[in-house]
Amino acid sequence: VRRRVAVLGAGSWGSAFAAVLADAGHDVVVWARREELAARITATHRNPDYLPDTDLGQAVTGTASWDDALDGAETVVLAVPAQSLRANLADRSPLPPVPVLSLLKGIENGTAARMSQVVAEAGRVAPERIAVLSGPNLAREIAARQPAASVVACPDPDLAARLTHLVQTPVFRPYASTDVVGVEIAGALKNVIALAAGIASGMGLGDNTKATIITRGLAEITRLGLALGAEAATFSGLAGVGDLVATCASTLSRNQRVGIALGRGLDLAAARAEVGQTAEGVTTAGPVLELARGVGQDMPITEAVDAVLRGGSTVQEATAALLSRPLRTEGPGSRVLRPGSTSEAPPPA
Amino acid sequence: VRRRVAVLGAGSWGSAFAAVLADAGHDVVVWARREELAARITATHRNPDYLPDTDLGQAVTGTASWDDALDGAETVVLAVPAQSLRANLADRSPLPPVPVLSLLKGIENGTAARMSQVVAEAGRVAPERIAVLSGPNLAREIAARQPAASVVACPDPDLAARLTHLVQTPVFRPYASTDVVGVEIAGALKNVIALAAGIASGMGLGDNTKATIITRGLAEITRLGLALGAEAATFSGLAGVGDLVATCASTLSRNQRVGIALGRGLDLAAARAEVGQTAEGVTTAGPVLELARGVGQDMPITEAVDAVLRGGSTVQEATAALLSRPLRTEGPGSRVLRPGSTSEAPPPA
Repeated sequence: VRRRVAVLGAGSWGSAFAAVLADAGHDVVVWARREELAARITATHRNPDYLPDTDLGQAVTGTASWDDALDGAETVVLAVPAQSLRANLADRSPLPPVPVLSLLKGIENGTAARMSQVVAEAGRVAPERIAVLSGPNLAREIAARQPAASVVACPDPDLAARLTHLVQTPVFRPYASTDVVGVEIAGALKNVIALAAGIASGMGLGDNTKATIITRGLAEITRLGLALGAEAATFSGLAGVGDLVATCASTLSRNQRVGIALGRGLDLAAARAEVGQTAEGVTTAGPVLELARGVGQDMPITEAVDAVLRGGSTVQEATAALLSRPLRTEGPGSRVLRPGSTSEAPPPA
Repeated sequence: VRRRVAVLGAGSWGSAFAAVLADAGHDVVVWARREELAARITATHRNPDYLPDTDLGQAVTGTASWDDALDGAETVVLAVPAQSLRANLADRSPLPPVPVLSLLKGIENGTAARMSQVVAEAGRVAPERIAVLSGPNLAREIAARQPAASVVACPDPDLAARLTHLVQTPVFRPYASTDVVGVEIAGALKNVIALAAGIASGMGLGDNTKATIITRGLAEITRLGLALGAEAATFSGLAGVGDLVATCASTLSRNQRVGIALGRGLDLAAARAEVGQTAEGVTTAGPVLELARGVGQDMPITEAVDAVLRGGSTVQEATAALLSRPLRTEGPGSRVLRPGSTSEAPPPA
């Protein structure tokens, strides 16, 4: 069934997702802040600023009017920058009473709120009507119509299922979930772990170290998520390990590039100047540690990244500190092994 | 405490692990099948055939005598090729009554047995005395003393803890576990998923597709593992996602290279001829599907790889089949979504 969908935000992910929706058979209106960009999207069905090589589809048009974008929309997709979400929702007309799907990844600075919490508060939307989408979805590859999968989570399982069918295309495969907290925590925290993976690459380390950081990073993200009410399976899934692996594999990601510069010994100011763009992980590490302290969770990799970002330790010191922690069992209920064990002889059979 | 450890097998992983043991402060005797290689290891503390650039450490010597290697050994480490394990144990002197640590990854052809099961049967070793080690441990990077972590699993948690301390170095960080089944299933099956990831690369696909294959591959490995008695957390850990990510990141791995050739359209014979080496995933897919059928588990990616390997479908057909499966919920108890959902209007608030 053909639907009218409003995509609020014309960055690379919003534009690529507009193409997914057009491929799924819908009419898509993309709201762009700048009049000129909106007009170009309508005229060319392309976004010359972010995805110049991508044909978004004939069904995609642009508008710089928030109200026009929402007029007649049967679903609203949010794709504005995470830290500007609250201002966008507060300053403009209210969202219509239709399902709202958030593509945003981040933790709000100052409030440590998840994006769906900001939508509920600032947009006055009932949580049952808010869904979130996340997965290994690098915008350029989605725009190139490469096969990918994702998770659509909503407290209402029927709405999750409907939105899943709404966004399916021959190459985009969504899975339904009810774990909004898990999907949002995983999406926000992967940027911090991507910084850590970038630091390791910048230090000249290879695939073992990177895979270890991804795995132990996933373990600490999962612990925090469980403490906040998320489900463990989400972190083993597409929004968890999937997105983390794709982000850490992509050496073009901003978080990795800032990490690589830090790993080569630059300080944060120099690393930022070299990359020339904001890396979300840089502003996420602090709020995440606040969240973690609030629920009494230990996050050694996030703490190490935060210490390096604040100039409190060198990358070498941070690495040595991680490796010298007491040995433990792996998995839930992980406990420290008795240090005395080395002095005992392996037993005869 | 300094121990005498026998490492049976002088391939790249056995040799790199001998260096870990030497760094951990032990005396290590490596058994090599060929007299000449054994003599070179003793004379130079290097393995010229597999790791010519690595100083294994002064404490590493070689021998071509199985009995000399085992003489006085306080721990035995198994590092022979997986498919030759049974013959090695059956044809030679019995192992001494000390802990046995297996580094082997694979499922035995013909019996579909895990390696620790082969050790127990052919070596007549009590399962409580057998441990397995697995994780994101590419041999070259371990040999270069890059930071890495791993899992040591044994049914006896005290022995797991002791072996964990035994193999710890300033850059090699082991975690203790009791889930032998999970660690072995994860280690064997990652090669099949690495073939699938290689196929995607060979088809020109990028990081989203690869991350999706890794995540959904992990989901089907986990389902099989749970049906065989493993614990879910192992698959989210270093021996699960960690090893899978490292293997799929390394484009030098044999499984990836065979997969890339298949993805470019070569058939298995041509792909093997091009790579010129055996890829474990090629011989693992069949036995794994047998195991899965035995416990009634669905393994769509493994089945797709098997179909491509047998020439039963092209890589394009296999990809299209995977993407057109009915939409589902993610995670444990995953169920198919009602196809009718698309025709319903999203509800008003």
